Amino acid sequence: MINVGVIGAGRIGRIHSKSIQGSIEGVQIKTVADVFKDSAKKASEEYNIPNYTDDYKEILNDPEIDAVIICSSTDTHSQISIEAAEKGKHIFCEKPIDYDVEKIKKTLSAVKKAGVKYQVGFNRRFDHNFNKLRELIQDGQIGDPHIIKITSRDPQAPPIEYVKVSGGMFLDMTIHDFDMATFLSGSKITEVYTQGACMINPEIGKAGDVDTAIISLKFENGSIGVIDNSREASYGYDQRIEVFGSKGYVKADNDTNTTVTIASEDGIIAEKPKYFFLERYMDSYINEMTQFFNCIKEDKEVPASGVDGLRAVLVGLAATKSLKEGRPVKIEE
Amino acid sequence: MINVGVIGAGRIGRIHSKSIQGSIEGVQIKTVADVFKDSAKKASEEYNIPNYTDDYKEILNDPEIDAVIICSSTDTHSQISIEAAEKGKHIFCEKPIDYDVEKIKKTLSAVKKAGVKYQVGFNRRFDHNFNKLRELIQDGQIGDPHIIKITSRDPQAPPIEYVKVSGGMFLDMTIHDFDMATFLSGSKITEVYTQGACMINPEIGKAGDVDTAIISLKFENGSIGVIDNSREASYGYDQRIEVFGSKGYVKADNDTNTTVTIASEDGIIAEKPKYFFLERYMDSYINEMTQFFNCIKEDKEVPASGVDGLRAVLVGLAATKSLKEGRPVKIEE
Amino acid sequence: MINVGVIGAGRIGRIHSKSIQGSIEGVQIKTVADVFKDSAKKASEEYNIPNYTDDYKEILNDPEIDAVIICSSTDTHSQISIEAAEKGKHIFCEKPIDYDVEKIKKTLSAVKKAGVKYQVGFNRRFDHNFNKLRELIQDGQIGDPHIIKITSRDPQAPPIEYVKVSGGMFLDMTIHDFDMATFLSGSKITEVYTQGACMINPEIGKAGDVDTAIISLKFENGSIGVIDNSREASYGYDQRIEVFGSKGYVKADNDTNTTVTIASEDGIIAEKPKYFFLERYMDSYINEMTQFFNCIKEDKEVPASGVDGLRAVLVGLAATKSLKEGRPVKIEE
Amino acid sequence: MINVGVIGAGRIGRIHSKSIQGSIEGVQIKTVADVFKDSAKKASEEYNIPNYTDDYKEILNDPEIDAVIICSSTDTHSQISIEAAEKGKHIFCEKPIDYDVEKIKKTLSAVKKAGVKYQVGFNRRFDHNFNKLRELIQDGQIGDPHIIKITSRDPQAPPIEYVKVSGGMFLDMTIHDFDMATFLSGSKITEVYTQGACMINPEIGKAGDVDTAIISLKFENGSIGVIDNSREASYGYDQRIEVFGSKGYVKADNDTNTTVTIASEDGIIAEKPKYFFLERYMDSYINEMTQFFNCIKEDKEVPASGVDGLRAVLVGLAATKSLKEGRPVKIEE
Repeated sequence: MINVGVIGAGRIGRIHSKSIQGSIEGVQIKTVADVFKDSAKKASEEYNIPNYTDDYKEILNDPEIDAVIICSSTDTHSQISIEAAEKGKHIFCEKPIDYDVEKIKKTLSAVKKAGVKYQVGFNRRFDHNFNKLRELIQDGQIGDPHIIKITSRDPQAPPIEYVKVSGGMFLDMTIHDFDMATFLSGSKITEVYTQGACMINPEIGKAGDVDTAIISLKFENGSIGVIDNSREASYGYDQRIEVFGSKGYVKADNDTNTTVTIASEDGIIAEKPKYFFLERYMDSYINEMTQFFNCIKEDKEVPASGVDGLRAVLVGLAATKSLKEGRPVKIEE
Repeated sequence: MINVGVIGAGRIGRIHSKSIQGSIEGVQIKTVADVFKDSAKKASEEYNIPNYTDDYKEILNDPEIDAVIICSSTDTHSQISIEAAEKGKHIFCEKPIDYDVEKIKKTLSAVKKAGVKYQVGFNRRFDHNFNKLRELIQDGQIGDPHIIKITSRDPQAPPIEYVKVSGGMFLDMTIHDFDMATFLSGSKITEVYTQGACMINPEIGKAGDVDTAIISLKFENGSIGVIDNSREASYGYDQRIEVFGSKGYVKADNDTNTTVTIASEDGIIAEKPKYFFLERYMDSYINEMTQFFNCIKEDKEVPASGVDGLRAVLVGLAATKSLKEGRPVKIEE
Repeated sequence: MINVGVIGAGRIGRIHSKSIQGSIEGVQIKTVADVFKDSAKKASEEYNIPNYTDDYKEILNDPEIDAVIICSSTDTHSQISIEAAEKGKHIFCEKPIDYDVEKIKKTLSAVKKAGVKYQVGFNRRFDHNFNKLRELIQDGQIGDPHIIKITSRDPQAPPIEYVKVSGGMFLDMTIHDFDMATFLSGSKITEVYTQGACMINPEIGKAGDVDTAIISLKFENGSIGVIDNSREASYGYDQRIEVFGSKGYVKADNDTNTTVTIASEDGIIAEKPKYFFLERYMDSYINEMTQFFNCIKEDKEVPASGVDGLRAVLVGLAATKSLKEGRPVKIEE
Repeated sequence: MINVGVIGAGRIGRIHSKSIQGSIEGVQIKTVADVFKDSAKKASEEYNIPNYTDDYKEILNDPEIDAVIICSSTDTHSQISIEAAEKGKHIFCEKPIDYDVEKIKKTLSAVKKAGVKYQVGFNRRFDHNFNKLRELIQDGQIGDPHIIKITSRDPQAPPIEYVKVSGGMFLDMTIHDFDMATFLSGSKITEVYTQGACMINPEIGKAGDVDTAIISLKFENGSIGVIDNSREASYGYDQRIEVFGSKGYVKADNDTNTTVTIASEDGIIAEKPKYFFLERYMDSYINEMTQFFNCIKEDKEVPASGVDGLRAVLVGLAATKSLKEGRPVKIEE
């Protein structure tokens, strides 16, 4: 039995608690921590977690706990990761590890030294559609990949308060797409060029961010790619990917709640995509937890490593710089 | 050069004139006849036809004319066919040959005696989608056919005056579907059972007809099928077919004017089917003419024979009888 | 807290146990019974059920148990239902209640007398796609329903031993479609006509059954319908429905595991349907349990009643008779 | 009656001759010219054109001729255009007008001075799908356009000899996409950034060109866009467009020859796109001719002007420069 401590009982901490508790055999959450003790208590009740605390160090100091799930605020990720590594805990850390490259590198080096597992929360790597894409690509179904195209649009722009502290669209939203591009291509992104616009809410522009963007990508293997983002798609959460290669393409369309269509005078009407990331990616959250614990049990490489976490941030920072300076920016590790 | 006479300058006579004139190499219309001389004149002008007349016998008596296209009213089809055969003309005759089985048999026997080509106007046999279905079936892509399903719905019920003289829905509308079922199955229909309802316009019911029907079919080769009809589909002309067999199915969806879809708050909206038979089947009219003349030129079997015309009427009559008597009816030739 | 006894620990008994245990708040399984004690024991371990037994009467005699889930063999359904009703237990009974109409009526009358809830296992009524269809129909989106079309094909014919005891395809497989037709139409089936064929396995024919069928339906409200069945679709479990009405149609396509398509020299290839009923209808099993217990908690009408169970059997028997006698058969309650 | 001279009897000259002759009322081709007299003769026979010549000046000097269709080699377009304008002929000129911006400007200025119609051969503006997109955008269906995405891939790379003289992929192939982006956006392209790769044929790279590209676009109205190109898509000619805006998106998928799908053990297989531009865009060639002559008859603005022709070349040159210099390039008129 693997004993787990969950650090942070906000939305994502609760999602992971729900996925683990009762669903993953041989794994149980022993303690949940949150700086707001009430949140920790509530989660402990809701997910049958025996202990709760407002001090994550209790988890780190508990010798019975084998692994931690870090879901606290971003600015604490690297510090808690380092401490947990030093205590010999296996670590699942929500993305991003940090916005500061030096801190990330320090974290990865602590993890390496401790020899513990370190998985970063790129949940989309565990999505049924995108996994199928990768499987088909690796199986040679499209030959050599030439072009990767990711459409990633949110159903609604976040509150302006969030925009101001989010690190910018590229680090908060597009970071998933950068990782997905790498995941599917099997090759590193070496250069980005960003075109951004503020078309949805002028307040976002005033806060120094954009809400609409096209980001061109170059990969180490010579292939190229493009991501298009919008903070607000009227028809819902739009998550489509196409990878084109020498033998054809593979393409993932949006998931919908049903397969129902209506034919009427207005046309043939199909359903909109599932509303937002919880609806769309719930299966991926369960899968990523399952695989994290499998890697611990079977001592395997994690499917979304600290280096993957570092790279996505490097690309996000380069994309931000490209937008500011109006020129392509190279990514250097 | 094959010289042609067109008998009947109504809608379908004009469609065929347009298809032939200028588009089919080595074929030209010499004369067009219509009981309304003005109609014949108008068609002659519109399609560059040198002669027009109100007496179809002028066409039959013209030794330069090799083939006739019979598009006159249904009650004259068999008589003109017989006369044309006796004059040694190749004949394309619009469907149905007649509603009277004895008259059809007499016609086919005259044609046989004369040794001329006799093609019946089952234009859907020449449709791009349905031809592809047949090609795939004959190529063994679905293995042995087990189930044939035809959806055939008109966009708008015809005027009640038409309903009263049309011979009933099964002889006027479903007759195309009966022929299509035979065409795709490659086997004769041996029994039908009809369920009909009058759900669109009670006047149709008062006229002794139905506007909605499901007709079950048995084929000589043991397979089974079903046709569903409606006189009025709000979203347009609905012409879909699925044939299921031991290795899978082939399916033809509706044609649309464009491939455009709209994503909005209301859903993902695709186009309705093309409006009605002229829009939907224009290519098939051209193809059927082309193949008719090819059969003359190369002395080949016509792709929609007099026997096909007879069989579709026999099935239509049996379907009508089944509805009236509330029991399955066998088809005997 | 509602205490539950599960009677029968075969495949479907285990599915229901899994759905209930831990997922439905305020409900817990206290005892599982199976004539094979080992099966009961295994289920008790797997789903954390405190007690197991080989005698279902232990469950019926346990005053702490409020509701039973009857998943034993079909021939015991009516007897156990009657006994459970007499003990005042709410009852969920797998379909069919019985193949004998008199026994079903006796059961329903015992249930009525006892005043307990009695829900029959028509799980497809709880499917996301078909529920959406019904919702749209009831919402008036297609106006008055005219034609109901159900395609229901299994991926693989069952073993011939099963065919011999199953009661025939119409009572074993099509019974779900009969119930679905009623569920969607909101009207009773009053007449059926069956065309059947044995095209997949001649052994099925020798056992007196068919493996391929088209069943025409008449409804009390004047609308009509058709079901097509095959025991073996090479491409998987095919479960599609279309309902056509005065304002258009609603249609449910198959579910797939992913939305991925591949474009290659061979065409544009999408995924096959989910493999079989467990994959396809898992969500519906969970929903039907949830709603059953909601009906108990809130003292509401069950969404799939004993009368629904009776009617589906009546239609199945009529379809069987129609096939044998080659004529349409009326359904009388 | 408008009399027309066709200059250049190669592939595109013959396509236009076929479209005009016999199909567009009130328009007739009087003379066809080609530097290879045999080609001119052959075209004259095939399309019933009374005169042929190897000297295009015969056409320009013929006072009976009202309009010319310039389909000669690109290097002659501007010179013949200027001469034709001076002779007062209305002009339809194939794209590009020239690769030399100064020559184009000189041409446009001659045309302006002469006051004749000057339409450039951007046939895709007349395509049924793309026209529908534009209509929906202009009708406000997507609100304000934010992102334009064009996928444009050829089925097979051209011979290396062609690549060497084509002016490069951006001027030969992408030029259509640049014009389409402008057409749909209703706004000028102001900046491009090109990522190119040579992934299909290394010979193309040796010739100084690329065969795969992603081109980011900025528009004057603040919106952004992206084009992805490949010289070789294994599954055929891929021509898809999506335009996303504040109220949703509109999207055009590929055309196919039929709507047929096959379900088999291998999946659900739909047809590949139509093979190449002749199959795909035949209707647009007919429409562009029809509209050109309508503009002459009704003295209206042409739907694809000389300025449009100039702009597409400017963007193509900027894209080429961007690729060479590895930086975004502004477009200045």
